[in-house]
Amino acid sequence: EVMLTSERYGVQRLPFSRVSDPDVAFFERLMPGRVITNPEELKPFNVDWLKSVRGASKLMLKPQTTAEVSQVLRYCYEKNLAVNPQGGNTGLVGGSVPVFDEIILSTVLMNQIISFDKVSGILVCQAGCILEKLNEHLEEQGFIMPLDLGAKGSCHIGGNVATNAGGLRLLRYGSLRGTVLGLEVVLADGSALDCLASLRKDNTGYDLKQLFIGSEGTLGVITAVSILCPQKPKAVNLAFLGCQSFAKVLETFTTCRAMLGEILSAYEFMDGKCMELVEKHLKLSSPVTGSPFYVLIETSGSNSTHDEEKLNNFLERAMTSGLVTDGTVATDEKKIKTLWSLRERITEALTHDGYVYKYDISLPVGKLYDLVSDTRARLGCSAKNVVGYGHLGDGNLHLNITAEAYSHSLLAAIEPFVYEWTARYNGSISAEHGLGFKKKQFIQYSKPSEAVLLMQRFKAMLDPRGILNPYKTLPAGS
Amino acid sequence: EVMLTSERYGVQRLPFSRVSDPDVAFFERLMPGRVITNPEELKPFNVDWLKSVRGASKLMLKPQTTAEVSQVLRYCYEKNLAVNPQGGNTGLVGGSVPVFDEIILSTVLMNQIISFDKVSGILVCQAGCILEKLNEHLEEQGFIMPLDLGAKGSCHIGGNVATNAGGLRLLRYGSLRGTVLGLEVVLADGSALDCLASLRKDNTGYDLKQLFIGSEGTLGVITAVSILCPQKPKAVNLAFLGCQSFAKVLETFTTCRAMLGEILSAYEFMDGKCMELVEKHLKLSSPVTGSPFYVLIETSGSNSTHDEEKLNNFLERAMTSGLVTDGTVATDEKKIKTLWSLRERITEALTHDGYVYKYDISLPVGKLYDLVSDTRARLGCSAKNVVGYGHLGDGNLHLNITAEAYSHSLLAAIEPFVYEWTARYNGSISAEHGLGFKKKQFIQYSKPSEAVLLMQRFKAMLDPRGILNPYKTLPAGS
Repeated sequence: EVMLTSERYGVQRLPFSRVSDPDVAFFERLMPGRVITNPEELKPFNVDWLKSVRGASKLMLKPQTTAEVSQVLRYCYEKNLAVNPQGGNTGLVGGSVPVFDEIILSTVLMNQIISFDKVSGILVCQAGCILEKLNEHLEEQGFIMPLDLGAKGSCHIGGNVATNAGGLRLLRYGSLRGTVLGLEVVLADGSALDCLASLRKDNTGYDLKQLFIGSEGTLGVITAVSILCPQKPKAVNLAFLGCQSFAKVLETFTTCRAMLGEILSAYEFMDGKCMELVEKHLKLSSPVTGSPFYVLIETSGSNSTHDEEKLNNFLERAMTSGLVTDGTVATDEKKIKTLWSLRERITEALTHDGYVYKYDISLPVGKLYDLVSDTRARLGCSAKNVVGYGHLGDGNLHLNITAEAYSHSLLAAIEPFVYEWTARYNGSISAEHGLGFKKKQFIQYSKPSEAVLLMQRFKAMLDPRGILNPYKTLPAGS
Repeated sequence: EVMLTSERYGVQRLPFSRVSDPDVAFFERLMPGRVITNPEELKPFNVDWLKSVRGASKLMLKPQTTAEVSQVLRYCYEKNLAVNPQGGNTGLVGGSVPVFDEIILSTVLMNQIISFDKVSGILVCQAGCILEKLNEHLEEQGFIMPLDLGAKGSCHIGGNVATNAGGLRLLRYGSLRGTVLGLEVVLADGSALDCLASLRKDNTGYDLKQLFIGSEGTLGVITAVSILCPQKPKAVNLAFLGCQSFAKVLETFTTCRAMLGEILSAYEFMDGKCMELVEKHLKLSSPVTGSPFYVLIETSGSNSTHDEEKLNNFLERAMTSGLVTDGTVATDEKKIKTLWSLRERITEALTHDGYVYKYDISLPVGKLYDLVSDTRARLGCSAKNVVGYGHLGDGNLHLNITAEAYSHSLLAAIEPFVYEWTARYNGSISAEHGLGFKKKQFIQYSKPSEAVLLMQRFKAMLDPRGILNPYKTLPAGS
């Protein structure tokens, strides 16, 4: 069984009330049959997907409406009960599960699509809709979601927004800060804040919704989302290529960005070690093998003839100039999915390799792989595997280190080394995963103390009792 | 001479200190030769570009560095002196000039480019850089700014960010909320907040910079900007077309969005009245005439052959199906500029037509022109001209009404009619211009009172004495 977070990290519980029988009775009256107290049933919601942190909540609530979320929070605020908002529980930094006995407030039953407008491409839905289901719904109408990530089959859109998820399409469609047009949020005291506009442009006062995007449930509970969705591309092509060095991975990126221009929709990379682990643990086989680096290039466009011509011109250039030594191209959906899974399922393969230390770093692209090499050299054989992959087009590296089991001494060899290295090049110690529980004490490597202080003032203003997702995102106030 | 804002609108001055001789002496020591007190020199900075509002500031300061801005604000904060941050003074809602005797804090000398990285496309510069100059600098290196607007020749990037400017490229490159990667801001008390990251992705804590984007100088003074710039397109094409009805303008949009896909970079529209005024007041002549509506379609792409083929296919469809009855296409830079100026210079033409009542509205696209028709019918001959144009692709209408001179009774016939109409269809009463001085009391048409209250709390927290751009953006606290 996973070690309790409070034990592994030696955290002190804050003086919140403990859930009592009258509390449970209140919630049972409010939402009969949607109140979970059975310890067996609660188990999977107390542990994160990586099995790296574990809380001890005794109560999970499953509201269906914003009004119910309001009533729950109003009650918890009055009674000083801490709350852990939870979506699909696919977060990677321990932000989505309780640390102690916080009440789990799940969006799992808030899964209604409210509207979709085919002229503007604007979708409005409840926070608990699963990303992949939304995408399927849109595809039927000629649109797609502006974000895509490995966890799409279980992550909730509300959780995506709460963590400001990046993912595989950011290079093309931009961040959620641009595509999310509106939010409905319930604040700590139970009051609902309706910023659910479905307009592409609205400059009437401060953009309050932005504060909740990426706040990891610490400032409010997102209950509904309005989001701008792009048209479904008529043609998608994928190239999976082998490169002999990271320098060639970079040069291939510059070349393909220039030659593919507006149709480039993803530029991902993975090292040979990643490929080994995907093959070993998931039995996936790659049509391209034996290279120290692999890149996955996706094009999405409106004219298959034009797109294929652009892609072929680029591939010819890349091959003849020796940037790329091996490769395969896919245009049919099935082969595209197979190739994508080599990249998308790395996270899963890593969990089969042992305990995983995960780092999600933004750096100037030129420096991206140096961090992997330096970490590998530093750890030597005290680590099982040190691998690097990620969204190269966005300057985003996923550095992962595996070991047979969790160990304090290995952690001490990695941290703060990785954070100091990142800060030296003005990088971000969390590009897209957020800070959650596991990274919050390292915020100062990427943010000046004045900024952290201001964040703490926002938290104190919006959640004066600190009941929303406590122990997360920000270091404790000083 | 333009009537004083305080007289025209009957506003009460708040109890700020008045600038004294010792204050001027302090600033003279701080920035010798960059302190303006000569009333003649101050004149153009007290009046907005539209000549619709006029303040009575007796002092303008021209800092060169963030440290100077800090020292100025620290002093003003201590002495309770109000400050009006000013960029290129091209704002359209009276946000950029003082209302009473606020000290004008100009970014005109903060015009240094700090860095540009050709690999990532990230530009870092001071707030007073002129948009067009930045664009020229980038073009030399194969990039462009992600925003473009009619005022580009004089507007400052800091002012663009402070108003969350939209403009002509938003359809393609998205809003500043996605492209601005970092900001440096000086707060009301003079403390500097360094969020000037130049990373595409950074999820370490709350995204503080978002609060300052679109806050119109009321929460802090933006001193530097980091922004993601797209590659300069290799091919640009323009089509200027005539349509017989607004329904055909809409159908043309849907058709071109589907057929041009990823290369569509602008879809603008203007009515016949706009064209008349541009011809009459600016002596511009259009190659396409005699239509009740005109649309301007721009493509930007990486392959001129492909782009022209896409555009020609679309034009053939639009012509044969009768969506479009007349038109011209431009591929050379000079003709492209000439055609763009027909659209970009409408604002200027309107100022020659008399006093202009300006409305900048977001609506569902299908409803966009109904507001123009309804307003025209309502005002009858009490208005000189009622015209509609704007960024159709973003659902953004510019409704403008001209009259020989400002009149209370005409204003009363327009407002709140226009705002009520907009609110009925869940539109925004300011899509991209902001609220500034002239629109702040109408915020409730687009935002619920809980949201306005929360904005006021943010203002009180960040600027407890209310010295930053007072009388702007938010209605007075209750």
